[in-house]
Amino acid sequence: MNFKLVIEYDGTRFYGWQRQKNKPTIQGEIERLLSIILNREIKIHGSGRTDAGVHARAQVAHFQAETHMAPASIKKSINSMMRHPIVIHECVEVPADFHAQYSVKSKEYRYYILNRPEPCAIGRDFSWHVSTPLDIDQMNQCSRFLLGIHDFKAFENTGSPRSTTVREIYSAQWSSPATDRLVFSISASGFLKNMVRNIVGTLKDAGQGKLTPQEFKTILATCHRPLAGATAPARGLFLHNVVY
Amino acid sequence: MNFKLVIEYDGTRFYGWQRQKNKPTIQGEIERLLSIILNREIKIHGSGRTDAGVHARAQVAHFQAETHMAPASIKKSINSMMRHPIVIHECVEVPADFHAQYSVKSKEYRYYILNRPEPCAIGRDFSWHVSTPLDIDQMNQCSRFLLGIHDFKAFENTGSPRSTTVREIYSAQWSSPATDRLVFSISASGFLKNMVRNIVGTLKDAGQGKLTPQEFKTILATCHRPLAGATAPARGLFLHNVVY
Repeated sequence: MNFKLVIEYDGTRFYGWQRQKNKPTIQGEIERLLSIILNREIKIHGSGRTDAGVHARAQVAHFQAETHMAPASIKKSINSMMRHPIVIHECVEVPADFHAQYSVKSKEYRYYILNRPEPCAIGRDFSWHVSTPLDIDQMNQCSRFLLGIHDFKAFENTGSPRSTTVREIYSAQWSSPATDRLVFSISASGFLKNMVRNIVGTLKDAGQGKLTPQEFKTILATCHRPLAGATAPARGLFLHNVVY
Repeated sequence: MNFKLVIEYDGTRFYGWQRQKNKPTIQGEIERLLSIILNREIKIHGSGRTDAGVHARAQVAHFQAETHMAPASIKKSINSMMRHPIVIHECVEVPADFHAQYSVKSKEYRYYILNRPEPCAIGRDFSWHVSTPLDIDQMNQCSRFLLGIHDFKAFENTGSPRSTTVREIYSAQWSSPATDRLVFSISASGFLKNMVRNIVGTLKDAGQGKLTPQEFKTILATCHRPLAGATAPARGLFLHNVVY
């Protein structure tokens, strides 16, 4: 039997998604509880990794197990035993060929910026504080160049195995739900290591007037990482949705 | 010279507002930094204490110091040196007779409830998760009995010195900004120890149909603490505003 999980987590105090020996990770915590609940060793496969400090509204994973337990009971058991900020919102049986990573059609990430002189105390683990004003129109002009199929090598940090650095971006847009809040929503066929955070770091430079939209376009075209901006902090990033 | 501070904090990892030896408290952290910045021992006086785990959007404190530093520079220095989720939003010079506690006209607290079967992972330190449905109309019918001048002994936990348990409530109302969110806003001349959390714990019982509005009214009138509900958790409570 094949099960799908939809998982929310606050990544602040984890060493990322992927299991590591003797370090708290989201995958590790869920596997530990599932193995107790189902009384055998369970390995889960996520839609992809998230780094230390990155959050998820709806990460997806699958696991295989033979059990008489109803999926709803599995979900309830994990949530009641969980002592970390991880919540299972869905546990359902899925066809045997469902794979949390390989069946992905698109993924959406969101990045949150607090844009005002003063930082915040409440919720500071969930946004990047940028104290100087950002020009959202400039940032959106740049974002349009991301749409479509491109080689995103300029926005990739090395360290993850991948066969190609070409990805397709379906949407990429900044909005402002409040005067001092900016949210970047980006949806793609897939993402390279640190890709969203590197894009956001570069778009922030554009928003501060350090970069024109034309220069942003050139950075993308050159595929040269040193031309792009710094990696934006993990705490502003949320894996928002995974579509199958 | 007399200075007023407006302070935001995430109270999750503090042992409350009030300074304690060898334990992180909000008052303690601010006093520590102010003493470094102004190069002498500084004591600050808050509008009142908040308990461990309780947050503040706008706590107010005052302190006395002779200094040539501009208030804006003091604020900036505290914020840049602060390593905890505490932010100073205002530092201004005030008349010598301003006292953060004794000059208070009214205080507003807010209490946040997440009301749905599943808990949340992101932001779980900032609300109380109640999994069974709450009847907001019932809770508001009860809340109306709080308005005006009453003896609130039924909603007080012992342990804090006070000359009287009579307080005046100016407003007390539940609203629902989203289908699974409830917010209680209560404004009063002052509050007794754990008063808001004891009121919320009792109103939650009413929202679950365990208590009628008439019974709630009786609890208030009897001044008998054991009749009221359990103390709601600290994490849902915010000191929202202090009026002078």
